[in-house]
Amino acid sequence: MKFQDALDAAERISGYVLRTPTLRVTPTLTFKLELLQHSGSFKARGAFNRILTGDVPEPGVIAASGGNHGLAVAYAARRLGVRAEIFVPTVTSPVKVAGLRALGAEITQTGAIYSQAAEAAAKRAAETGALQVHAYDQPEVIAGQATTGVEVMEQAPDTDTILVAVGGGGFAAGVSLGSGAVPGTAGGGGPKIVAVEPELIPTLNAALKAGEPVQVPVSGVAADALGASKLGALAFDLLSRTALTSVLVTDEAIEDARRTLWRDHRIAAEHSGATAYAALLSGAYVPAPGERVVVVICGSNTDPATLVIN
Amino acid sequence: MKFQDALDAAERISGYVLRTPTLRVTPTLTFKLELLQHSGSFKARGAFNRILTGDVPEPGVIAASGGNHGLAVAYAARRLGVRAEIFVPTVTSPVKVAGLRALGAEITQTGAIYSQAAEAAAKRAAETGALQVHAYDQPEVIAGQATTGVEVMEQAPDTDTILVAVGGGGFAAGVSLGSGAVPGTAGGGGPKIVAVEPELIPTLNAALKAGEPVQVPVSGVAADALGASKLGALAFDLLSRTALTSVLVTDEAIEDARRTLWRDHRIAAEHSGATAYAALLSGAYVPAPGERVVVVICGSNTDPATLVIN
Repeated sequence: MKFQDALDAAERISGYVLRTPTLRVTPTLTFKLELLQHSGSFKARGAFNRILTGDVPEPGVIAASGGNHGLAVAYAARRLGVRAEIFVPTVTSPVKVAGLRALGAEITQTGAIYSQAAEAAAKRAAETGALQVHAYDQPEVIAGQATTGVEVMEQAPDTDTILVAVGGGGFAAGVSLGSGAVPGTAGGGGPKIVAVEPELIPTLNAALKAGEPVQVPVSGVAADALGASKLGALAFDLLSRTALTSVLVTDEAIEDARRTLWRDHRIAAEHSGATAYAALLSGAYVPAPGERVVVVICGSNTDPATLVIN
Repeated sequence: MKFQDALDAAERISGYVLRTPTLRVTPTLTFKLELLQHSGSFKARGAFNRILTGDVPEPGVIAASGGNHGLAVAYAARRLGVRAEIFVPTVTSPVKVAGLRALGAEITQTGAIYSQAAEAAAKRAAETGALQVHAYDQPEVIAGQATTGVEVMEQAPDTDTILVAVGGGGFAAGVSLGSGAVPGTAGGGGPKIVAVEPELIPTLNAALKAGEPVQVPVSGVAADALGASKLGALAFDLLSRTALTSVLVTDEAIEDARRTLWRDHRIAAEHSGATAYAALLSGAYVPAPGERVVVVICGSNTDPATLVIN
């Protein structure tokens, strides 16, 4: 994949997704408010780019998802007037299932975690001939997510470092590609990438240690969004070439970051959306003095009743 | 007051308040996300500008408030290391009272509505000699709020119209001044202003009809933020000279706008914060085709448990 793929995707999806704002909270800390994206997460970018690139057959599109990707595919399908069938595991939060229903998608809830729902979806796709929209391991999907990286560097060109959460790796790979951080893709210099994962789902961390994507256990507070069992192959290819720091955070740090985002900033993030910020707040990643950091807050599909002030 | 007062305020408070982002949701509709401001509303701007302009005596600062202004004064006082005494009425929401406690302010809850708390605060100020920070009727406060208008026109220079909520009028007057909409203040042309009020608290609407600020009853869902009984004299002076449209919305329209902001945009606004958008959604204000509208979402001091998806 090349940097140009991100630029092409940006043009393709520009009428369908939001240019989400950045918020500078201190001279060296900026939030990219990607949680304000249509469907409540960055996933809308990849979903639109994939669906707009391919020819959609009569049976429509099909996707497996912990929830956010499904919401994005269902949102894009509704906007583009095609059918959507979404497979989600039982770990998916009730808020996300309700959201899928509201978007009019056909939903099948099966398997305990994402990988099991993904197997069922692949089998179903083979039967129906629907267009598969993968949650992270397709070039069009990664190119769509990469438009977030393009925007960050346009909105905050002085960025030294981007902190981004990792599940299957499609978003982290995309942000790396789109911000120009992947050598050999003809991007422009690019920032340093800090890839943040829950200790309980270390897909990238384990892959970097093993030299290839490997199976990891999946649990914890962010499991319905960062709950891939294994890093995607395309993501590994891009991320293993990137100058990145892989960082792990505890569930407690994620909870604390989510509370802080609401209490101090009135940003209503889901757990995955607060994961990148958790690395900064917990000290798992400590920027150098003067280092200009952008933290991508990437999802808001959460029950607001679980946010508490003070 | 002059446009230059807004520019001076912007310089004075720039190290203390956030430049809140704008979000373009359609080619002709942009949100100004002022609810992400420190202390959860635009009030931080006026509070900092007032406190940084005056000399703060040993007894510190004192303010009466429906809640948001008190939170802003308490926040600014803590940041600047001065004492703060805040008077709030019983209509003030528990979330706001808890927020004031967390900021370490001395709180007195007295009177049913803002004007009664304001009387008690004025009496107390006369006893202690504390610096009064008025919720809307002081030039330094209006100049602080005016920095929102300056930012809107910098961030979206093609704006035709700004929709803004009205309580005591300080914010609407400030946004008018800072966006260049008040003739004779040496601003630059400036957009049209649509001033939106709950039907149940029509301070500006009644003042424009009467030719001067008059007492109005105070009730409804936004009463703890837009609950002034009478438009401020300074606000009336500025707003009565401005080319503005005064619009009233029902409480039902405000509730609906608040729900929509969360469901479709993941913006967690309080009722007052959703009031300007209610005018658009309910059709109380209908833009012309192609008219570029900025809606200021001005407050987020709300119990998130009252936000419901789908």
